[in-house]
Amino acid sequence: MTDSAPATTRRRENTRIRLMDAAAEMFAEVGIDAASVEAVCERAGFTRGAFYSNFASKEELFLALCARSAEITIAAVRDRVTSIEDRGLETAGDVRQLVHEVLEATGEDRLDVLLGAETRLQALRNPEFAQAYLALNQGLGESVTQLVRDIAEARGLAMRVPADVATELLLSVWISTSETALLTRQAPALSRAGLAERLAQVVGLILE
Amino acid sequence: MTDSAPATTRRRENTRIRLMDAAAEMFAEVGIDAASVEAVCERAGFTRGAFYSNFASKEELFLALCARSAEITIAAVRDRVTSIEDRGLETAGDVRQLVHEVLEATGEDRLDVLLGAETRLQALRNPEFAQAYLALNQGLGESVTQLVRDIAEARGLAMRVPADVATELLLSVWISTSETALLTRQAPALSRAGLAERLAQVVGLILE
Repeated sequence: MTDSAPATTRRRENTRIRLMDAAAEMFAEVGIDAASVEAVCERAGFTRGAFYSNFASKEELFLALCARSAEITIAAVRDRVTSIEDRGLETAGDVRQLVHEVLEATGEDRLDVLLGAETRLQALRNPEFAQAYLALNQGLGESVTQLVRDIAEARGLAMRVPADVATELLLSVWISTSETALLTRQAPALSRAGLAERLAQVVGLILE
Repeated sequence: MTDSAPATTRRRENTRIRLMDAAAEMFAEVGIDAASVEAVCERAGFTRGAFYSNFASKEELFLALCARSAEITIAAVRDRVTSIEDRGLETAGDVRQLVHEVLEATGEDRLDVLLGAETRLQALRNPEFAQAYLALNQGLGESVTQLVRDIAEARGLAMRVPADVATELLLSVWISTSETALLTRQAPALSRAGLAERLAQVVGLILE
């Protein structure tokens, strides 16, 4: 590797980040459909050439945005929940407490929920994009499954289904409950309480 | 009520059905975005006036299509599963058999899965349409919850969560598993087997 390679890598990473930040702002303001590649480039201060050397399409940029948000959330939950001293969950109250700790580590997620729904539909519509979507989701799914395993181990919990099935179940319920909260325009505090209640019920079913 | 009222009602119902059939064809061919009100009317042989006296918007027409499909599925499952003689589920094999019976009563659902995802995203994007979406989904949710209660009663099953929570869980997993099967372009038989496996695991968690 030459001396210039790390600088190139840093510059490239910086371009990606600025394009993603611009896309996040545009998504919040006008949605994916109205956010053109041109508009994202203009806001970020890059050419279309810089865009396409980083992302195959607008959809892949928004997918990268989903991934970044999911990775931040996974890391935050890992820090928060596995750092607590080893102890089991004896009562239903302990399950609620665990779910509460996980949710405290996740941010306000209205835009993430909407971005997730937009990206999933794009993948369902577009077979080429589906490949990128699936590859990324598989990686994220494995990270979450490992997190579920680590939490179960740290707390001495036994599960009635394999960790990957538990993860799928928890993510499905998390997403559908969050989408319903968004549809019913619930206030964030109410939405968060409803999600905690539902997740605690599912965790209760999953644990032995 | 005058003599002509029932005839008017029948004619109106007939118009609705023909518009919905045309919309179903167009959805399969070009998707919701490309299916304009004009094109649906032209295919069904009606004016825009006839359209708007039946549906507030294109989205509401597609929502009615989702509802019709869901109602047919619910009725088929009810016929198939609650007609069998009263017997409990003693083994894991019995749970698989029950799930298999339910799935046998549901049709090939590739387009339904896509239509459901399209309609949900429209509702997330559009607050006005969200009202219609929620109202209809609440009604369907109650029908499915009643079906879950009836199956549990007919088979002598006890659940570890209320029937409405069990229903939410089953529908979330059903939808997300079906979407993943569609994304991975699984052959229908493989997709059906994967869904049966996942639902049997969830039913196993829900039952005492």
